[in-house]
Amino acid sequence: MPVCSYELKGTDAQTSARRGELTLRHGVVQTPAFMPVGTYGVVKGLVEEEIRDLGAHMILANAFHLVDRLGAEYVRDMGGLHQFMGWSGPILTDSGGFQLFSLRHLAKMDADGVTIASPHDGRPVRLTPESVVQAQADLGVDVAMILDHCPKLPAERRELERSLETTHRWAERARAVPVDPQTGPARFGIVQGGLEEDLRARSVEFLTGLDFDGYAIGGLSVGEDPQAMISMVEFAAPRLPKGKVRYLMGVGYPEDIVEAVAAGVDLFDCVLPSRNGRNGNLFTSAGRLVIKHAANRDDPRPIDEDCDCFTCQRYSRAYLRHLYTMGMSLSARLMSIHNLRYYQRLMERIRSSIEQGTFPELLAWARSRPQGKPPSRLKVARP
Amino acid sequence: MPVCSYELKGTDAQTSARRGELTLRHGVVQTPAFMPVGTYGVVKGLVEEEIRDLGAHMILANAFHLVDRLGAEYVRDMGGLHQFMGWSGPILTDSGGFQLFSLRHLAKMDADGVTIASPHDGRPVRLTPESVVQAQADLGVDVAMILDHCPKLPAERRELERSLETTHRWAERARAVPVDPQTGPARFGIVQGGLEEDLRARSVEFLTGLDFDGYAIGGLSVGEDPQAMISMVEFAAPRLPKGKVRYLMGVGYPEDIVEAVAAGVDLFDCVLPSRNGRNGNLFTSAGRLVIKHAANRDDPRPIDEDCDCFTCQRYSRAYLRHLYTMGMSLSARLMSIHNLRYYQRLMERIRSSIEQGTFPELLAWARSRPQGKPPSRLKVARP
Repeated sequence: MPVCSYELKGTDAQTSARRGELTLRHGVVQTPAFMPVGTYGVVKGLVEEEIRDLGAHMILANAFHLVDRLGAEYVRDMGGLHQFMGWSGPILTDSGGFQLFSLRHLAKMDADGVTIASPHDGRPVRLTPESVVQAQADLGVDVAMILDHCPKLPAERRELERSLETTHRWAERARAVPVDPQTGPARFGIVQGGLEEDLRARSVEFLTGLDFDGYAIGGLSVGEDPQAMISMVEFAAPRLPKGKVRYLMGVGYPEDIVEAVAAGVDLFDCVLPSRNGRNGNLFTSAGRLVIKHAANRDDPRPIDEDCDCFTCQRYSRAYLRHLYTMGMSLSARLMSIHNLRYYQRLMERIRSSIEQGTFPELLAWARSRPQGKPPSRLKVARP
Repeated sequence: MPVCSYELKGTDAQTSARRGELTLRHGVVQTPAFMPVGTYGVVKGLVEEEIRDLGAHMILANAFHLVDRLGAEYVRDMGGLHQFMGWSGPILTDSGGFQLFSLRHLAKMDADGVTIASPHDGRPVRLTPESVVQAQADLGVDVAMILDHCPKLPAERRELERSLETTHRWAERARAVPVDPQTGPARFGIVQGGLEEDLRARSVEFLTGLDFDGYAIGGLSVGEDPQAMISMVEFAAPRLPKGKVRYLMGVGYPEDIVEAVAAGVDLFDCVLPSRNGRNGNLFTSAGRLVIKHAANRDDPRPIDEDCDCFTCQRYSRAYLRHLYTMGMSLSARLMSIHNLRYYQRLMERIRSSIEQGTFPELLAWARSRPQGKPPSRLKVARP
């Protein structure tokens, strides 16, 4: 069995939305899919049963942060990330490429790779395209993202070209690392190129030439205009191979996800539902709900009367507000569960609408949503 | 059905240990029993299934803190504490008497009752023996502790006598409050008297004369020598009526519990297992384990190989240490579960040993335990 295979089950007639199945060593993922974020080897506050009850099939962790905090060989010696963290389903790890962007003030590039001063203790963490694949093999994850270079936008054309060259050189080296064909990990290439269509096209062409197991669109949702982000996804996604899975990194709001699905994207991750959940900023079928608002004090209703999550089946807004104002960690857990289930319900709706030929209506609905234009659009980033 | 009945199922031949069954409106509690603490209407980090999986039948909350934070009428209007917090088993609430002790710098006594400046916003919270029973009726709990006066030890004899007088006067008034005979709450009297045997005897006599539904021994574990505490339990417990349940408030270490059971106590609560659990200070069959210690970094074993709790079935010391050092709330939840299950396993062992006539061996084992003399004996107090 290959470490990664994607089967296209159907395509929407009017859009590029795809219904598929991604088979990895630790299980099958129905796509389009959303991965809850577990940067440090924990989906904050939750255990495996709770994550599965959300309807999530696959989670994301971060190889850079795990290497920085624990070391990949340490996790390997502890039985691998699955055993260590108690999650038996598929895991994808981000490479650390995003940390070259978010921690660029701590990073020093050289001809061979990059050295980042650890954000928690200052020790140098060395990343090369090869070490990053090896670290993810040691972690034992299903999917390794290769090391990429993510430029800050807006950027000069020359800078974008230089950055893209680095990404491509690193991609060749990452592809050349021998990995066990039985145990993987699968490797996904990451398309870069900022907001320049010709660079994105060049990146797609170069990376697909290396024949990765899947392809990600990276370097978006890093501060650019949301419409520019969606336009670039619409440009890049359809150019990727039909027979491989397509992953849009670190995106995003529910409406962004529906738009990206319409462009042909299969896989998503974002800290938004879990982080907002912990902070009491909740997604509901009637729009945003901020749990700390005084109006919730006397409200015996669940967060969302249309929601089937554990939290909404059991607890009132009033009680959640009580827990939140008391600083009780249970509130973070319960509200994360709700928000993550909201995202999984969205994915279920996306999948069934593609199957039933009603995806264009879902897209129209998403475009009309009041929370499509939130008053404070949070920055949505890879963890 | 009465709101509270205690059935004595058997007594140990060599000690005063009792095996019993306490029937309350929301369920039956096998005694001796330990109540996890949920001061503010939440057993920190845990939901009902988890509390039940511990083997706990009954929990404790605190009427003073609930009144201070939310108001009893508010909780009543939210459907009562059971519905509000999502716990369908028996609940006992402490009265606020202990806060007259722990918050005495904020409390002003007068002829009718006491006014405490709210520890969170300074607003005056008025407590009278009557209002405290009424508040607990509004909360809808199974057992209401009456308002008592808990002196700071050591205390002058005269001061102890005056304090005891207050406790008894308040007890009469609390007993006289009419409560619904169908919905309760049951009322437990609280024996005070410091470390003076004659005062304790006087208190037992006075309170039993008022015919409460159960009796607590209060005012212990407030800074006195542990041996003096046990001696006073051994003095007071056997003097309480055999046909009513006996509750030792805020105690304590596992060995203290076994000693108190030997003296005839049926019911316990303490923040120790949950608070220590959150802080990574763990009870194990081989003694204490401090999760943050470096030795745990490479230890793939569970906290306790003899433990059947969710945490020990699933996670290594290494992973728990990782979560703890990262400040992840999941570690508090998982370690609370372990410590609380440790206590419930102790209670299960106590109950079965009384049934099987082997309790004296358990008592001998408890007296020989290395963790009977912990290096830093934490203050064990009512929440």
